[in-house]
Amino acid sequence: MNGGPARRRREQQQEQTRQAVQEARLQQAGDAERLRALLHGADLPLVVDELERMNARQRVTAFRMLPRDSSVRALQMLEPAVQAELVEALPDPQARDLVAGLEPDDRARLLEGLPEHLATRLMGTLTPQERAATEAVLSHAAETVGRWSTPRLVSVPQGATVAEALAAVRSDDGRAETVYVVPVVDEGQRVVGVVSLRRLLATEPGTPVSEVMREPISVYVSEDQEDAARAVCDHGALAVPVLDDDHRLVGMFTVDDAMRVLQIEEAEDEARAVGMERLSTPYLATPFLALARGRIVWLLVLIVAATLTVNVLDYFEDRLQQVVSLALFIPLLIGTGGNVGAQAASTMIRALAVDDVRPGDVLRVAGKELATGLTLGVTLAVVAYLPAELFTESRVALVISLSLVVVCALAATAGGLIPLVARRLGVDPAVVSAPLITTFVDATGLIVYFLIAGAVLGL
Amino acid sequence: MNGGPARRRREQQQEQTRQAVQEARLQQAGDAERLRALLHGADLPLVVDELERMNARQRVTAFRMLPRDSSVRALQMLEPAVQAELVEALPDPQARDLVAGLEPDDRARLLEGLPEHLATRLMGTLTPQERAATEAVLSHAAETVGRWSTPRLVSVPQGATVAEALAAVRSDDGRAETVYVVPVVDEGQRVVGVVSLRRLLATEPGTPVSEVMREPISVYVSEDQEDAARAVCDHGALAVPVLDDDHRLVGMFTVDDAMRVLQIEEAEDEARAVGMERLSTPYLATPFLALARGRIVWLLVLIVAATLTVNVLDYFEDRLQQVVSLALFIPLLIGTGGNVGAQAASTMIRALAVDDVRPGDVLRVAGKELATGLTLGVTLAVVAYLPAELFTESRVALVISLSLVVVCALAATAGGLIPLVARRLGVDPAVVSAPLITTFVDATGLIVYFLIAGAVLGL
Repeated sequence: MNGGPARRRREQQQEQTRQAVQEARLQQAGDAERLRALLHGADLPLVVDELERMNARQRVTAFRMLPRDSSVRALQMLEPAVQAELVEALPDPQARDLVAGLEPDDRARLLEGLPEHLATRLMGTLTPQERAATEAVLSHAAETVGRWSTPRLVSVPQGATVAEALAAVRSDDGRAETVYVVPVVDEGQRVVGVVSLRRLLATEPGTPVSEVMREPISVYVSEDQEDAARAVCDHGALAVPVLDDDHRLVGMFTVDDAMRVLQIEEAEDEARAVGMERLSTPYLATPFLALARGRIVWLLVLIVAATLTVNVLDYFEDRLQQVVSLALFIPLLIGTGGNVGAQAASTMIRALAVDDVRPGDVLRVAGKELATGLTLGVTLAVVAYLPAELFTESRVALVISLSLVVVCALAATAGGLIPLVARRLGVDPAVVSAPLITTFVDATGLIVYFLIAGAVLGL
Repeated sequence: MNGGPARRRREQQQEQTRQAVQEARLQQAGDAERLRALLHGADLPLVVDELERMNARQRVTAFRMLPRDSSVRALQMLEPAVQAELVEALPDPQARDLVAGLEPDDRARLLEGLPEHLATRLMGTLTPQERAATEAVLSHAAETVGRWSTPRLVSVPQGATVAEALAAVRSDDGRAETVYVVPVVDEGQRVVGVVSLRRLLATEPGTPVSEVMREPISVYVSEDQEDAARAVCDHGALAVPVLDDDHRLVGMFTVDDAMRVLQIEEAEDEARAVGMERLSTPYLATPFLALARGRIVWLLVLIVAATLTVNVLDYFEDRLQQVVSLALFIPLLIGTGGNVGAQAASTMIRALAVDDVRPGDVLRVAGKELATGLTLGVTLAVVAYLPAELFTESRVALVISLSLVVVCALAATAGGLIPLVARRLGVDPAVVSAPLITTFVDATGLIVYFLIAGAVLGL
């Protein structure tokens, strides 16, 4: 519909970048200058896209053609697993140069993915301050805000004037991650407020910062990265101060890092929703055995769980033998139950993630999902009755319709409650993934079906 | 594990906010002052969380207790459907005041959700400039960047000096959405570069801006909101210039709006992945009939599609009659196929969204997914053979193992390719949702199963 010219322009850019990167890889003789120029002008995220579509060897060749400044920024944009692979393959001096150019938090995430001997060697080439900053980041647990914040920041004491604060911003050598949100601290380095650079510029220079600062929103260094990123997003903040457990300022958590965290968490949740591991490398660069490895664990769990359904059917085999047409509707019935359960589970996982629902709401959720499931079940039962009658006799059609009502009610309620229970037990609700709920619904749904069949058909 | 004190602190804040908002709702006599103070100090996103957990009537009562400044910001943070409900329920003067306090883009999204007579009345109370700005936003198609950008911005001509640029920033009355990224324009209002406020502050005042500006990343007003938000995210930009189709600057698209867009799109994709509509109101505030309405459409489509499986089983009913134990493994077999298909589809939908895979990669994807599916199938077949033999005879166990291999290969390939084909046809891959793939895999899987059973068992 709309967006035509914009999309065409983007596709054109993509194509140009693709060609430039491919030519870089092929190192067409004698034309290195032109290539550098091409890559220099290209949109960096597009270059990164191209790099991520290559295999490891091609990627190294193309990467080495990037101008130095672009190569540091491109490295920063690559997935950590790809970064590590690349740095391992580069000659030592270039690797050292790149690693030194990174922010301490980016560097820490990269070094963690490298083989220990290489990480230690690269760490040894840093200046003592850089090494200390990197070690500080690595001292925080994985998946905490500490891994995304650095002590490179501009802060001002609470007695300062606006002019002094602006001078502090001006004297920053470009190393601070952000200067747009300036924390105001007391003598004990405790944050008493924050002031935006915009506010500072709009205020009389002689004004004390304590008069223009506002209530700080802050996060703790040991806080879960996703919680902190959602806080940044909910507040529409450009950066928030990061505090240690004694409430002292130790860093800033910026909006671009918050966006990256949310993207990682989103990819993880999506993967978990279908019982997979998140891919740590781009799809086309991932060998099929690695794809299979990320998928097999839950499939094995689920196939073991599915033997429950074999047990149930084995138990009711005599009823099946008497009325084989009951078997015709098994996939339809459990498929519908599975879909209803997955919808409820997905709704609840989302509601928990954005704090619309909390574990204490269990009764409200149970009531809502039971009512929803019954409504869905009755609707589907009415719709399914006539077609079912075409394939079989009317008493079997009645069994199917009644089973649909019960199975839908059960599936919606279970799908809604299981993530809540998981959260209460401290388990990530996304891990109790839709397929697990589906398998549970399959087994209980079959029991319901054969019990109803037994009652209606007198088996 | 970690994050203990931080999480406890957050929970404490939540509890305090909950109490304050609940008290506000109950309007405990005579204590309005204390309540206002409580709400004034509360973290606004927490207040919004509480408001979203209430029913419509409670929400209006509590909302009216908020200080004026907080109420505008709280309104902005609420879901559009909740905003509309609230504004409808408020007395006219307060509604007018709130609507006037919003940014033009927020206001446009709100007005769109209101009944036409109310929207027109509120629009009539705006100043002519505000009305024009709002109408400009509404003139762009839904889901485009135009809906998220406003003409309130600070830009500088390319001939300006750094001092002049800083003066332009200082003279902004706080109405521009951002001053941290300043576009530099030529006489035709075309963007020739952007310069960050940080860079401006760090540069000699007499320097021409054209010397410190950098290559602009820009988006077009008619561009899809998700594409533009991903561009902001990929570049780690705080804001990007928005251009009209003649490449003229018409607004800025800021990172906080980009984050909101990505959250909306994420919620939409998650809902579509299980065949639902995205909830436009928070879960607890959504009546069960609305929940059911958002879920029923795809369930109906899927139950109709599932009659395919009834047809297949009906066709093979004589084989079932001869070896009833074949029926025992139907749920296990199609369940596994469904899981494998859902994994492949989810992987591909994600890879397409982040541009790791493009429609042209169809052969590489087919090869990878076929290999992955075969690997998964062989592994599962080996694991399932012995348990299957316990329930039935060894020839039936062989049928099951062989079927698992074929079904997994088929499911992975179909799951990987269907989203690619959808994208090529211009359909959102997430709409071709996992349940649809599952239903397809169910039917073909059953055919495979009975054909293999026929060959091995000589039926």
